[in-house]
Amino acid sequence: MSKITDFCLYLCVEQKTKKMFVEDEWNIIEREFDADRQMIAESIFSIGNGHMGQRANFEEAYSGKTLQGNYIGGVFFPDKTRVGWWKNGYPDYFAKVINAPNWTGIHTWVNGKLLDLAKVKIRSFERVLNMKEGTLSKQCEVEMPDKTRLLITSQRFVSMVSVEVGAIRYTIETLNKNCELTIQSFIQSKVFNQDSNYNECFWESVSHKNAKGRIVAVDKTKQNPFGVSQYSLATAIKNDFSAQVSITHKTENLQLNEIATLQLKKGDSVTLTKYAAQVSTLNYEEKSLEKIALQRVEAAEKEGYEHLLKSHKKAWAEKWKMSDIVIKGDVKAQQGIRFNIFQLQQTYTGDDSRLNIGPKGFTGEKYGGVTYWDTEAFCFPFYLSTSPETVSRNLLLYRYKQLPRAIKNGEKLGFTHGAALYPMVTMTGDECHNEWEITFEEIHRNGAIAHAIYDYVTYTGDKAYLVEYGLEVLIGISRFWAQRVILSPIKRKYMILGVTGPNEYENNVNNNWYTNYFAQWCLRYTLETISWVKRVAMEQYQEMAKRISFEEMEVLRWSDIVQNMYLPTDEKYGIILQQDGYLDKEAVTVADLPADQRPINQHWSWDRILRSPYIKQADVVQGLYFFESDFEMDTIRRNFDFYEARCVHESSLSPCIHSVVASKIGNGEKAYELYLRTARLDLDDYNKEAQDGLHITSMSGSWLAIVKGFAGMRVQPNHISFEPYIPKSWKTYSFTILYRNAVLTVKVGKSSVEIRVSKGFVPNLKVYGETYEVKSGETLKVKTKA
Amino acid sequence: MSKITDFCLYLCVEQKTKKMFVEDEWNIIEREFDADRQMIAESIFSIGNGHMGQRANFEEAYSGKTLQGNYIGGVFFPDKTRVGWWKNGYPDYFAKVINAPNWTGIHTWVNGKLLDLAKVKIRSFERVLNMKEGTLSKQCEVEMPDKTRLLITSQRFVSMVSVEVGAIRYTIETLNKNCELTIQSFIQSKVFNQDSNYNECFWESVSHKNAKGRIVAVDKTKQNPFGVSQYSLATAIKNDFSAQVSITHKTENLQLNEIATLQLKKGDSVTLTKYAAQVSTLNYEEKSLEKIALQRVEAAEKEGYEHLLKSHKKAWAEKWKMSDIVIKGDVKAQQGIRFNIFQLQQTYTGDDSRLNIGPKGFTGEKYGGVTYWDTEAFCFPFYLSTSPETVSRNLLLYRYKQLPRAIKNGEKLGFTHGAALYPMVTMTGDECHNEWEITFEEIHRNGAIAHAIYDYVTYTGDKAYLVEYGLEVLIGISRFWAQRVILSPIKRKYMILGVTGPNEYENNVNNNWYTNYFAQWCLRYTLETISWVKRVAMEQYQEMAKRISFEEMEVLRWSDIVQNMYLPTDEKYGIILQQDGYLDKEAVTVADLPADQRPINQHWSWDRILRSPYIKQADVVQGLYFFESDFEMDTIRRNFDFYEARCVHESSLSPCIHSVVASKIGNGEKAYELYLRTARLDLDDYNKEAQDGLHITSMSGSWLAIVKGFAGMRVQPNHISFEPYIPKSWKTYSFTILYRNAVLTVKVGKSSVEIRVSKGFVPNLKVYGETYEVKSGETLKVKTKA
Repeated sequence: MSKITDFCLYLCVEQKTKKMFVEDEWNIIEREFDADRQMIAESIFSIGNGHMGQRANFEEAYSGKTLQGNYIGGVFFPDKTRVGWWKNGYPDYFAKVINAPNWTGIHTWVNGKLLDLAKVKIRSFERVLNMKEGTLSKQCEVEMPDKTRLLITSQRFVSMVSVEVGAIRYTIETLNKNCELTIQSFIQSKVFNQDSNYNECFWESVSHKNAKGRIVAVDKTKQNPFGVSQYSLATAIKNDFSAQVSITHKTENLQLNEIATLQLKKGDSVTLTKYAAQVSTLNYEEKSLEKIALQRVEAAEKEGYEHLLKSHKKAWAEKWKMSDIVIKGDVKAQQGIRFNIFQLQQTYTGDDSRLNIGPKGFTGEKYGGVTYWDTEAFCFPFYLSTSPETVSRNLLLYRYKQLPRAIKNGEKLGFTHGAALYPMVTMTGDECHNEWEITFEEIHRNGAIAHAIYDYVTYTGDKAYLVEYGLEVLIGISRFWAQRVILSPIKRKYMILGVTGPNEYENNVNNNWYTNYFAQWCLRYTLETISWVKRVAMEQYQEMAKRISFEEMEVLRWSDIVQNMYLPTDEKYGIILQQDGYLDKEAVTVADLPADQRPINQHWSWDRILRSPYIKQADVVQGLYFFESDFEMDTIRRNFDFYEARCVHESSLSPCIHSVVASKIGNGEKAYELYLRTARLDLDDYNKEAQDGLHITSMSGSWLAIVKGFAGMRVQPNHISFEPYIPKSWKTYSFTILYRNAVLTVKVGKSSVEIRVSKGFVPNLKVYGETYEVKSGETLKVKTKA
Repeated sequence: MSKITDFCLYLCVEQKTKKMFVEDEWNIIEREFDADRQMIAESIFSIGNGHMGQRANFEEAYSGKTLQGNYIGGVFFPDKTRVGWWKNGYPDYFAKVINAPNWTGIHTWVNGKLLDLAKVKIRSFERVLNMKEGTLSKQCEVEMPDKTRLLITSQRFVSMVSVEVGAIRYTIETLNKNCELTIQSFIQSKVFNQDSNYNECFWESVSHKNAKGRIVAVDKTKQNPFGVSQYSLATAIKNDFSAQVSITHKTENLQLNEIATLQLKKGDSVTLTKYAAQVSTLNYEEKSLEKIALQRVEAAEKEGYEHLLKSHKKAWAEKWKMSDIVIKGDVKAQQGIRFNIFQLQQTYTGDDSRLNIGPKGFTGEKYGGVTYWDTEAFCFPFYLSTSPETVSRNLLLYRYKQLPRAIKNGEKLGFTHGAALYPMVTMTGDECHNEWEITFEEIHRNGAIAHAIYDYVTYTGDKAYLVEYGLEVLIGISRFWAQRVILSPIKRKYMILGVTGPNEYENNVNNNWYTNYFAQWCLRYTLETISWVKRVAMEQYQEMAKRISFEEMEVLRWSDIVQNMYLPTDEKYGIILQQDGYLDKEAVTVADLPADQRPINQHWSWDRILRSPYIKQADVVQGLYFFESDFEMDTIRRNFDFYEARCVHESSLSPCIHSVVASKIGNGEKAYELYLRTARLDLDDYNKEAQDGLHITSMSGSWLAIVKGFAGMRVQPNHISFEPYIPKSWKTYSFTILYRNAVLTVKVGKSSVEIRVSKGFVPNLKVYGETYEVKSGETLKVKTKA
C-alpha cells in the first residue's frame, strides 16, 4: 500500500511517551483532558457500525484543534488529482471518502456565555470507549467564567442494528448555582474535507426543513467531470428534552439549529436525547431520501434510546462471542487486541458487497474508505474466521463486481483480451492512485486478490463459489500475468520486469521474487480450477468461456509460464533474492542504522532509500507467509533471518507478517517483539499520526500474529491445524473461530492447550501434527509445547 | 533532460504537413496568414539578443489564440511546486522564466472601429524574419468592415548592441479612403504566465508615470516564501509620430496608453517609431530603475531608429562571420541550419556569467530560461568554436559560481564533505525539478559539467582556468561520485545503483553504463588535474585544498574506484550493456513498432515504456560520442548498430548525437537521415509543439551533426583534426571556427576539402590522418574522401 507517511516510528517498543489511556480489559479510558492530544483522542474514540461512523468530535463547541469527521460507507467524492508530472495512464480523479454533514453537535450557552470546551475550566474529565458495548461516553465537570459549575454526561453510539441511525444521550446538571441554559442541537451541512486537493467544498445544499419538530437536510455532492455519479444524503435529527423548554429554530450558514432555553436550579439537570438518521442515494432514490430519513428518525424515537441501545449491545455481544481474544496476565496486550478487533468490527460488517475496508475506516479522511490490497492480504483471514461465510464472500464479490473495471484498467495500460489489473486504490473499481511506480508497477496486488479466493474456498469448502464467480476473476488475473511476463531472450525464462514489490523501498525492479512467485501461483491455481470446474460443471464453464472468449490456447501458454517462471535465488547465501541484483547492494543491516536516522523515510531522500538494502515491509517474507507449505523449514528460517535483519518495518503492515513467520520457525521472542509493534500501534501512537485516523487494516495483523502466529493455525483443503505456544508474559490466551459448520474455542495455557468445539464437528483437527476428531461439546486437551 | 512532452513525433522525415514557410537561404518568410498557426509563428519569428526577447506577438490587437511572451534573461519567479506525492529532498519551488510587461503593443482604431487582426479581412500578408540582420518585419493589407483598406508595414528588433533596448517602426497607409485613425501605443504591466502552477499572477505594480512624453512602469515580482529575491523591472517607451497627432494618455487595468488621433487622406501614411527599454534589479538598484529606463529610452530616441538598426546589423554581421554554415545545393538545409544558429545566437551571447541557455530561450515559457545539462552536453561545443573564449568561459563560470549551491544540493540528498551534485533544472543553482527518478537519480548531469571543463581546456589551451576555477568544480563533482558508488559485496567492483541515464525511458536502474563510465572518467580526469595543478601551481593548490578541506586520502579512494569501476558489458553480443539486465528485455527493435503506436510516449503507459527495450535518446551512444577515442571503431559500430535499432529518438537531443556517431563509423546515409530530424525540427514543426516555444538547446545538434559529424572535426590536447565527407544531396558546405588564435574556414565539396586559415597559425592540423601546418592566409586543399 502506498501510504508514504504510514510508518511505525518507534525504535523500541517501550516508549517514553506520556501515558494517555488507562489500562483496562474492555474499555479505553481517558481521565484527563489534554488539548494537545484531542485529535488523537478523536481518532481513538471513533465509533462506527460498518455503514457510518464518526470521529469522537465533542458534541460541545470546541475552538481548539480538531478534525471534524463523519463518514458514510461508500459515499465519496472524485477529487481532481494533483500531479506534478503527468504520465499516460494516470487516473483523472482520486476518490475521497467524504466528510458528511455532522449530526452530533450540541452547543450550550450558560447565562448567555458559550460553553467552549477549549476555553472553560475543566475540573474533571473522563472519556470511555466501551468496546464490549460499542458506546462512547464522556463525563466532565466544567466551570464557566461566572463560576457556574456544570456536570455534563453524554453517551452516544451508532446502531449495529439500525445501521442508518445514531443516538446521543446528553445530560447537563448544574452543581452550584441556578442558571439559564440555551441548548442548541443541530445538523451542520457545511462541512469540508481537509485533504481536498484544491481546497474545494465537495457538497452543495439541496434543501432543509423543520418537519414537525424533526429537522432534515438534504445535501448533494458537487458535479464532477469524471462521470462519477453524484451522491445525495439526507440527515434528520429529532431532539427530546427531559424538561420543559422553549424551542426556536434558526438556520445559519447551513447549520440547522433547534434552540431550547430553560432555567435550571442548583442541582437540577436536563437530558437531551438526540436521534439521528442518515440515508443516501447509495441505497435509495434521491426523491425519497428526505422522507426515508424522517421515517428512520421517527422509528428510532419511537423505539427509544434504551431499546435502541439494548439491541445494539446485543449485536456487539454476538460479535464478541465469535471474535474475542482473551489474554490473561497482560492487561495492555488484552486491551490492545480488543481495540484492534473492535475497530475491525466497526469498520466492516460484511452485509453489503459494495463496501470494503478502508485503511482508516471511519476514523479519518486520509486513505479513508478506499480499498487497497490490505483487504485481501491482511484483513481477509480475520473476517473469514470470525464472521459468517457471507461476510468474506461479500469481500470477494466486491472484487468480482469490479472485474469489468479491472479489465478496463488493464486496457488503459495496454493489456488486451480481458486481462484484469485490479487497481491499487479504488472506490468503484477505477484506479485512483497516481504514482507510476505504484499505480502501474505494484501489480502484485492482483495476486492477493486471487489468493483470497483460494483462502475462502479452502477455509469454507464453498467450491461452488469458484464455478459461479471465482474462476472468472482468476482467469482475468491470469490473463494479465500471461501478458505481463516476457520471455528473456538470454535466460529463456519468463520474467516480470519493472515492478514494485510489497517492499515499496524498491521501485521499478526486475523480477521481484514475490511478484513472480505469485504470478506463477495464480496461473497454476487458475489452471487447476479450470480443470476442476470443467469436471464438475462443464456447462457453466462453457457458458463462461464463451462469454469471456476464453480459449484453450491460453491454457497452453499458461502451463509453459508456470513451468518456466524465473525465480531469482542466490546459491552462495542459499536465499531467495528479493529481486535481480539485490545482493549488489551495500552489505549493511538494520543494526548498522544509527537511531537518529530512523525512520529512514523521514531522514533520507528517496533515491538513498531505494539504493539501500533496507526493506520497508515484508516482501520475500510476505511470500513465505503466503506459500509457507511450499518451503522447507530451513529455507524459511534462512530467509527470515536474512530479510528480518534488513527490514525496517516502516509500514504498519509489516511486523505482523514477520511475527507470524517468526512463530513458524520457533523464534518466539522475535515473534512477540514484532507482535507488540502492531497490537498497540495506535493506542500508544507509536508513529505519531493517530490524529489523522487509525490504521484499521493493519489491526488485523495483531489477530494474525496471535491466531496464525502464536497458535499456529493453518487451514489446508481437508484439515485445520494448530501449533500453539504462549508468549512468556502471558498466562493464557484464547480465541474462538468459526470453521465450516463448527465453532472452536482455542485456549492456550502454559501447560495445556484446550480446544473446545461448541458447535459442529471437526473430523480432522491437527494439533502439533497429531490428528483428532472432535465432536460438538467436546474439548480436546493436549500438553503445550515449549 | 526531463521534458516529457519533448518528443519528435515525426515517423518519417518527409512529412505531409502544410508548408508554412517559403524556402529561402537567409529569411523565414510566411506569405499567408493562418490563425491556426499563429502560435507556431509567434515562436518561430521570436527575436532576442541574449538579454531579452519576445515571441512574435502582433503589435496589433489580436483576439485569436496567442501566447503573449516577453522575457528578460535571468529574471524569474519561484513558483510554488505542484507535487502529487511529496518525497524527502524535493525542492520547494520551481523557477519559472517570467512573462514580463509587454512593450510591443500598438492598437489602432479606424473610424472608431478596432483593428483586430483576428477579425478584419486580411487581403495580403507577409512576415519575414531576416536572420542575417536580426529583424522581424511584417507587411499586411487589411480591409475594415467599412471597406477602408490599410497597408501596415512594421519592423522590429531588440538591439544586439544596446541590449536593454528594442524598437519598432510601424507605418499605416490608407489605400482607398480618408479616415480617422486612433493609435494607442502602450506598455501592458498586467501579464501572466500561462504555466503558473496555481494560476497566480507573478507581478505586482509598483508605479507608472508619464515623464515628459515618455511612459515608464515599474513592476516587481510578488513576494515568495522561498527566500528568493524579488526582481523589479522598469519598462519605458517613447513614441515618435511622423505626422501631427493629438495626444492623450490613459491608464486602464495597468495598461499605460499613449493615444494619438489623426486624420489620414486616401494615400497618406503615418509612421510611429516606438523605442522601448527594460532594465531590472538583476543589474541595477531598485530605486534607480525608473531613471535608468528613461535614460535608455532617451538615448535610443536620440540615436534614432536607423542608427540603432545599423549598429544592430553590424553586430549580427560579426556573429555570422564567425558562425555561419553555408550549404550549397540544398536551400531547405541551408535555411534550417541558419535558423538554428540564429536562434542560438539570439538566446545566449555569453557576456554575463549569470545567464545560461534555456531550452526554449526567449520563445516560450515552458522550461524557458532554466538551465539543464543541455548546455554542457549539447550547446557548449557550438559556442566554443564560434565565439570568443570568454563566452564558453562564462558558461563554465556559471557553474563555478553555483558550486556552493550544488554542494548544498548534495547535502540535501545525504552527501557530505563538499560533494557537489549539480541540479537537473536550475536558475540560481537551487534544484527546481521534482520527479524523484530525474531530480535524485539522473545524476549523470554531473559528468557533462565536468566534461565541459575538459572540452574548454582542450579546445582553448587555457589550462590556467583549471587552477583558478576548474579543479574546485572537478573535486566537488568527484567527491560526489566517490560517495555515490558502493562496493558490491558480490562482484567486488564499484557500482552505481538506482540511477536514470540519459535514456529517460529507464528509471532507477543499476549500473547505467554511461553514468558509471562518466563517473570513472570524472575521477580520473580530476586525479590528473590535481597532479598537474600541484606541479604548476602548488601554492594555489594548497590554498584551495585547505579552503575546501581536501585530503590526500580522498585521492587514494578515487584511484581505487577508477581501477575497479563496474562497467556492464555482454560477451555474447559483444556490446556494452546500457544497464544491468538490459538484455533480459524483449527481443524487439524499433522496426517491430507499429506506426500507430509512435511516439510510444503518447500511446503507452509509463510502465510499458520502462520495461520495453526502447530507448528515448542516445545513452550508450552518447557515451561513445563523448569518449570515442577510448574505443575501437568496431566496438563503436557494433554498439551503434545495436542501440540505433532500439532508439525511438523521442527526445530532440537524440538524433544529432546518433548522427555524429553514424558519421564516425562511415554510415553517411544514416547520419544524414538523423541530421534532418534535428535541423528543421521546429521550422517544420515535426513534434507539433512549436507553438509553446522552440527547442533551442537541441538546435546545437544540427551544428554538431555537420561540424563534428559530416566534417569530422575533433580536438585533442595538441591538434585539431577533420575527416570530412559530404551528404549526397549537397554541392558544398562550409563553416568557420575559431581555434585558439586562429580562424579556420572549412569548405567541403564533392571533390575537395579546402581549409583556409584567415587569421593565426595552425601548427597541427590533421585532415584524414595527415598532419599539416597552415599559416595565416593559406588554404590547405585535399581530396574529399567518399
